[in-house]
Amino acid sequence: MLKGQMMDRPLLVSSLIDYAAEVHATSPIVTATVEGTIHRQTYAETRARVVRLANALLRLGVKPGDRIATMAWNTHRHFELYFAISGIGAVCHTINPRLFPEQMTYIVNHAQDTMLFLDTTFVPLVEKLKSSFTPIRTYVALTDRAHMPAGEPIRGLLCYEELLADGAPDIVWPDLDENTACALCYTSGTTGDPKGALYSHRSNLLHTFFVLAAAQGSFMPTRPILPVVPMFHANAWGLPFLVTLTGAPFVMPGPKLDGVSLFDLMDKEKVWGGWGVPTVWLGLLDEMKKRGRKPESLSRILTGGSAIARATLATYERDYGIDIVHGWGMTEMSPVGTVTQMTPEERTLPFEEQMDIKSRQGRRMYGVEMKIVDAEGNRLPHDGASQGELYVRGAAVISGYYGNEAATRAAFDKDGWFGTGDVATITPDGWLVLVDRTKDLVKSGGEWISSIDVENVAIGCPGVANAAVIAVPHPKWTERPLLVVVKAPGADPSKEQILAHVAAKLAKWQVPDDVVFVDSLPLTATGKISKKDLRIAFAEHRLSAQ
Amino acid sequence: MLKGQMMDRPLLVSSLIDYAAEVHATSPIVTATVEGTIHRQTYAETRARVVRLANALLRLGVKPGDRIATMAWNTHRHFELYFAISGIGAVCHTINPRLFPEQMTYIVNHAQDTMLFLDTTFVPLVEKLKSSFTPIRTYVALTDRAHMPAGEPIRGLLCYEELLADGAPDIVWPDLDENTACALCYTSGTTGDPKGALYSHRSNLLHTFFVLAAAQGSFMPTRPILPVVPMFHANAWGLPFLVTLTGAPFVMPGPKLDGVSLFDLMDKEKVWGGWGVPTVWLGLLDEMKKRGRKPESLSRILTGGSAIARATLATYERDYGIDIVHGWGMTEMSPVGTVTQMTPEERTLPFEEQMDIKSRQGRRMYGVEMKIVDAEGNRLPHDGASQGELYVRGAAVISGYYGNEAATRAAFDKDGWFGTGDVATITPDGWLVLVDRTKDLVKSGGEWISSIDVENVAIGCPGVANAAVIAVPHPKWTERPLLVVVKAPGADPSKEQILAHVAAKLAKWQVPDDVVFVDSLPLTATGKISKKDLRIAFAEHRLSAQ
Repeated sequence: MLKGQMMDRPLLVSSLIDYAAEVHATSPIVTATVEGTIHRQTYAETRARVVRLANALLRLGVKPGDRIATMAWNTHRHFELYFAISGIGAVCHTINPRLFPEQMTYIVNHAQDTMLFLDTTFVPLVEKLKSSFTPIRTYVALTDRAHMPAGEPIRGLLCYEELLADGAPDIVWPDLDENTACALCYTSGTTGDPKGALYSHRSNLLHTFFVLAAAQGSFMPTRPILPVVPMFHANAWGLPFLVTLTGAPFVMPGPKLDGVSLFDLMDKEKVWGGWGVPTVWLGLLDEMKKRGRKPESLSRILTGGSAIARATLATYERDYGIDIVHGWGMTEMSPVGTVTQMTPEERTLPFEEQMDIKSRQGRRMYGVEMKIVDAEGNRLPHDGASQGELYVRGAAVISGYYGNEAATRAAFDKDGWFGTGDVATITPDGWLVLVDRTKDLVKSGGEWISSIDVENVAIGCPGVANAAVIAVPHPKWTERPLLVVVKAPGADPSKEQILAHVAAKLAKWQVPDDVVFVDSLPLTATGKISKKDLRIAFAEHRLSAQ
Repeated sequence: MLKGQMMDRPLLVSSLIDYAAEVHATSPIVTATVEGTIHRQTYAETRARVVRLANALLRLGVKPGDRIATMAWNTHRHFELYFAISGIGAVCHTINPRLFPEQMTYIVNHAQDTMLFLDTTFVPLVEKLKSSFTPIRTYVALTDRAHMPAGEPIRGLLCYEELLADGAPDIVWPDLDENTACALCYTSGTTGDPKGALYSHRSNLLHTFFVLAAAQGSFMPTRPILPVVPMFHANAWGLPFLVTLTGAPFVMPGPKLDGVSLFDLMDKEKVWGGWGVPTVWLGLLDEMKKRGRKPESLSRILTGGSAIARATLATYERDYGIDIVHGWGMTEMSPVGTVTQMTPEERTLPFEEQMDIKSRQGRRMYGVEMKIVDAEGNRLPHDGASQGELYVRGAAVISGYYGNEAATRAAFDKDGWFGTGDVATITPDGWLVLVDRTKDLVKSGGEWISSIDVENVAIGCPGVANAAVIAVPHPKWTERPLLVVVKAPGADPSKEQILAHVAAKLAKWQVPDDVVFVDSLPLTATGKISKKDLRIAFAEHRLSAQ
């Protein structure tokens, strides 16, 4: 092999914050803090704090490769931890505080975390769990002395701001191998123990570049970005790295993610782009309808994590002129895989056709390869009709689960592609259309019914606020769909009205056999509708054998 | 070291054209051909041709690592060669046809090129030189059968379109190591033999990402880009990779780079952005003044290669509303190092102050590190005042010259940084200001005079079309500046008028001692003003010993 003669310089997370501190020095990082105030600091100030934090970590004995855990909201302090921990060659392990306690205990022990940085919100939780957090030697509260919890709920609890004040102000970042681990995030499957994705500096940097290329124009110093997606969830979709590279102002919402709080913060801080899951956008939309306007500067929303209802999408676009970008990904993919990327021709189509296209999960970003396969692993054509399990490959996709051989064996095919657990079609021009999660499909006789398709139609029915479809056992067809509905406030649609609405838009065999009403839908730790909990709740539901 | 558990997928040029063919399938590549027609093909069609070409190369016996030379204008065929040659693991060696014949002979033999693809324009040239092109076994004319040269000026000359027609339509690209060499470009210094920069797949991909991050919004499927910068010059600044990644339409001007031809092509093809050297923008500006308007859609120009006069810059911005982005780089840097990146605050400054900022060479893009050092190699502060030689480091900077140990030893410092040969200052907020090429500085007594500074002022003088400053020997001050002026058409400024204009804007010791008038300035092979030729021409010029 004839090698190029180019410098062997590694892709490192530390170089991002150094760059931002120099070239985007005055761009702001704004936080609605846990303490209730609005905090502002520039990228230059942020780097200065990151350096102090890194030096404090070194003084506390943190070594390369150590896993340092966080249990925190989206705040400037959490942001600083991302860069300080990885900068010195340790691993920033973000723990999802919405997990079940036994899952957190499993994760802390499996990862062998030696420190935990936590927001004061989580002190009561950690107080209960700390005896099971065996490997953790040091706890740090993400606050200043004035807001430290009273008493000593966690013995030896350190104060973050004091730690920083004691850290030295200068550092030379170590020249790490770019394949060094830099972050760890566990994904809570619906079965089995949580599984860890161990990101490298290289994969995080490349993921940043890949998203940037696919979402051109979304990241600029003039366009403040608000991450509703939590930093404890798959790198907050890579946003902390994207804004640092491009100097986009970063407006972090802290713990308050309801429609009113988000609207006010977006309005006040002139937020241009928001990134988060559909439930959040439903909440914000309610608030926009109440006030009869959008947050002043809000121009683009990236929605992902689960499918967004076509009706929600169309309302945002038509009534408020907000550009919706639909994304799909997985924790195992760093996490973005596809985003809406319309061609100039597609942008000239009639509105409804554009919404049809935007309802799809997007087109692959550069750096992500996709294939759909049948049950025997044979590739299926990208013809927009063939349905198969989706497999992916790319430089920002995991090659295995951290310390979990069994889960690794189950997740990859013989050629090393990662199985997503999604059933999908791919159009000839590259649009990904998710049919369903493999396990959420309703297998009715010889036909597959996509729960997502039915939900999308049901949510468009007047008086329906939210809806979910699950499979329930059926004496004749093996499984049939059951529609679970949350009524809109003040509305009272009947079962018959809803089924008539659905029947008008779907094939007969796709129409649910029954409708049940609930006050709210159960959510998973990552804010998605928990089909698992619904299946348990309605396990005894009987359909008539028609 | 704890490694991340991420897939080990290489960054390869072939993945770019595959991506474009799928996600940006219908985006066009337009060429004003050597034959005089306008040719259109989509990215999908381009990939199909690239695959046929790659298979044809394999059939002709091209092996991994082989150097395959091109001598060609910016056309779709040259574009196809970029991807086909590198796709199969060979090296695309772009030869600058404006070099001296002896330099071309040196380069072909030094690189050991085995094939040469040439535009028919260059058949007479190659006919003369071919006996000295010892290693070349195969010549291919970049045209179809109808336009092949008459007779047999080059024995066995193949026809490009016939080659393609014979190539098989499918390929599985080899899974190369990302550090594999993919392209080779010789830079013609003012002294010594040309020196080769041997790019890798990795460095070309990373350079693409780095430029993308620094030039946000410049590359979109809705914004056609015209590369005036030739593809035989440092990867055409990376544009073939940038447009392929982002799906931007690519409008290639072929051999005609005069103001009239460029204006017409830009106008017709709704070009949004143009990339090239200042002399080209002077030519286009003349044409815009004649027609009293800009090409309809032209909105942004990236200028680099040499400093642009402030007056030119300001005219583009003020009179035509065209956003000028000023860049700086070197063949050895793939080539971009810095570009204009203004903060939101800087964008609100008064116009003249904004032009002052844009006159600077820009701020470093992510992935490029810079330092300025004194004669002993000590780092100087980035204070906007300290002048030193500029050194750079980064993943897209060469680590040595191809097959040239002596030149390599001379170009790098002990820490492995590359010496640019430029003298510069860097402001505290990261703006690069080039003082001059080390060898173009006028060393007057104990003071350094920047030839660039004086030229910028002189070009703003009414009646001056272009200007260059060189050092000439002086009995008292060792060197003093001599101003060489090209008068504007129809204008006749006097020596005294010009010197008075300059004296009003510069310190007394910076004012040239004399002015000489020429019809045109000599250019180097890359289109820059050749100070070397001017120094030779005016070697005998005597200044009075005042």
